[in-house]
Amino acid sequence: MIIDCHGHYTTAPPQLGEYREAQKAAVGADPTFVGEKGTIEIGDEALIDSLERNQLRLQRDRGLDLTLFSPRASWMEHHVGNQHTSRFWSEQCNDLIRRICDLYPDNFAPVCQLPQSPGATIDASVTELRRCVEQHGFIGCNVNPDPSGGMWNGPTLDDRSFWPLWEALCELDVPAMIHVSATCNPHFHSTGSHYLGSDTTAFMQAMTSGLFRDFPQMRWIIPHGGGAVPYHWGRFKGMAEENTAAGWLTVDEMLENVWFDTCVYHQPGIDLLLDVIPTSNVLFASEMVGAVKGKNPDTGEYYDDTRKYVDRAAISDEQRVAIFETNVQHVFPRLRIGDAQ
Amino acid sequence: MIIDCHGHYTTAPPQLGEYREAQKAAVGADPTFVGEKGTIEIGDEALIDSLERNQLRLQRDRGLDLTLFSPRASWMEHHVGNQHTSRFWSEQCNDLIRRICDLYPDNFAPVCQLPQSPGATIDASVTELRRCVEQHGFIGCNVNPDPSGGMWNGPTLDDRSFWPLWEALCELDVPAMIHVSATCNPHFHSTGSHYLGSDTTAFMQAMTSGLFRDFPQMRWIIPHGGGAVPYHWGRFKGMAEENTAAGWLTVDEMLENVWFDTCVYHQPGIDLLLDVIPTSNVLFASEMVGAVKGKNPDTGEYYDDTRKYVDRAAISDEQRVAIFETNVQHVFPRLRIGDAQ
Repeated sequence: MIIDCHGHYTTAPPQLGEYREAQKAAVGADPTFVGEKGTIEIGDEALIDSLERNQLRLQRDRGLDLTLFSPRASWMEHHVGNQHTSRFWSEQCNDLIRRICDLYPDNFAPVCQLPQSPGATIDASVTELRRCVEQHGFIGCNVNPDPSGGMWNGPTLDDRSFWPLWEALCELDVPAMIHVSATCNPHFHSTGSHYLGSDTTAFMQAMTSGLFRDFPQMRWIIPHGGGAVPYHWGRFKGMAEENTAAGWLTVDEMLENVWFDTCVYHQPGIDLLLDVIPTSNVLFASEMVGAVKGKNPDTGEYYDDTRKYVDRAAISDEQRVAIFETNVQHVFPRLRIGDAQ
Repeated sequence: MIIDCHGHYTTAPPQLGEYREAQKAAVGADPTFVGEKGTIEIGDEALIDSLERNQLRLQRDRGLDLTLFSPRASWMEHHVGNQHTSRFWSEQCNDLIRRICDLYPDNFAPVCQLPQSPGATIDASVTELRRCVEQHGFIGCNVNPDPSGGMWNGPTLDDRSFWPLWEALCELDVPAMIHVSATCNPHFHSTGSHYLGSDTTAFMQAMTSGLFRDFPQMRWIIPHGGGAVPYHWGRFKGMAEENTAAGWLTVDEMLENVWFDTCVYHQPGIDLLLDVIPTSNVLFASEMVGAVKGKNPDTGEYYDDTRKYVDRAAISDEQRVAIFETNVQHVFPRLRIGDAQ
């Protein structure tokens, strides 16, 4: 069985974008705009069509069984609007994910986005996490380490303001993928430099702060193969060893709480990841349909068909089973294979 | 012959830091403080001692011949002070580099820092570049893609405000290492997430903007093994292929103007770099004495002894000569081996 731990609903029918554009127009005119959750009229047929032509087709073509499915990351845009609009937007996006998982319980399991909002407390995110997990069977969430959208002017992940969320993750026994959204800072390209830089930044914040000492049960997935971290594993290992007296965690200690996904879109990158990071800390993922949709002209294969890279990697069959199937069940204990999610 | 293209004077006698602290105190009290260049009293003996105990000892121990030597990157701190203090600080730091290269013409070749300053034009940097190259024999410079120190609120590298500097680089036929300094943003750790994230960001800015179309002769070195870029080479290649119509450069086009150094502190990282990036685009470097000073307890070897990784890599002797010796002479045509620099 092959479980993809990182997929976003990037192919939603236009009504979802129209809802968001109306929100944006309203908060653009009045930053204190509240509005209401309202409704988005998308029939099951439209949902089915958007998935059958994209994620489900690729799942079948690539022999994948199940995708942990969350709202489109680049659309979370926590920097847009305010706490109210962020809340309604998150609820709508998460409700769509729930419907998709009800339509295809064997193909998708639900992961939620959170209504983070610059300057607001984390309370609304805890509330939405509880709603999704306790009432709607979600098994994990995405946490944005920079809800400012590339301005990096909010609290760091070890700041006490994040603690209610970390406590809720531990209590509910769900992991967090630490995943930024689109950037409004022209220095960064969202799915290029911003995603990868943020992955590295999140890892570093946890390592230097010793955050996991306070939350030994917390589980983080650092997506996109961990940003730059595995490629520079010696750098991080050496820096941590020099700074244990300052409270840093060692890389081995980090691996008690951190997993990396396989969203690395060429064979040498996957080979490095699997060489450097223990098998037990790697989760299969492709993030399709995502940042890179095309085929590599050198190979004729889709860049994001990461299964092929893992299949070809010089690891044992037992290791492959761990990466494809069993590690993810450890990290997401609420995932129930074969049951409706 | 082994040439290290990336070394900083991180071991300067205390008088240099005292000069800077006095500047910081003065601009702290009055942001419009001008002051004067003044003098820093450091005798040759103190310079010699600081180098013999550190960089020269390690050069000898590791069998390295020559280091392209620039002021301490984390101390450039362009976000501190104003155009005037940044200018005097840069001149002092570069003057020290000149003295060192006069003392050890066979061991060091001079690379300068520039007096970038948030909100100021690039003119002072062009002036200092010309002073260093035309009057003092410098062969390259370091350009900070984020002189704000992690706030990322200045112009991007493709902005027209940078063009006078790019024009000067081309005219003088010197390359730029695109290298940030320390960060004042608590989200980033300077030599960890900030350095690596900035490397990736600089590459992405050039790729998405097509900057090198306007400066086909410009040569950039992206340090620290290119940040996250080689590890995610498939991602960058695929994104570029999807966006050629939007004016992006392909990764092959980028390699006409960009080189990566070997400051990657473990064997698997170097192996990936040399596997993915053409030999002609890799320059040997260690950045000692720098971010990681210790030995890897698993191997007993210094993390930053990158020569060992290159020696062991599965490449031909011809490739090793290119990486150690000949590529760097192509990128730095003002480097004259055997002559006083």
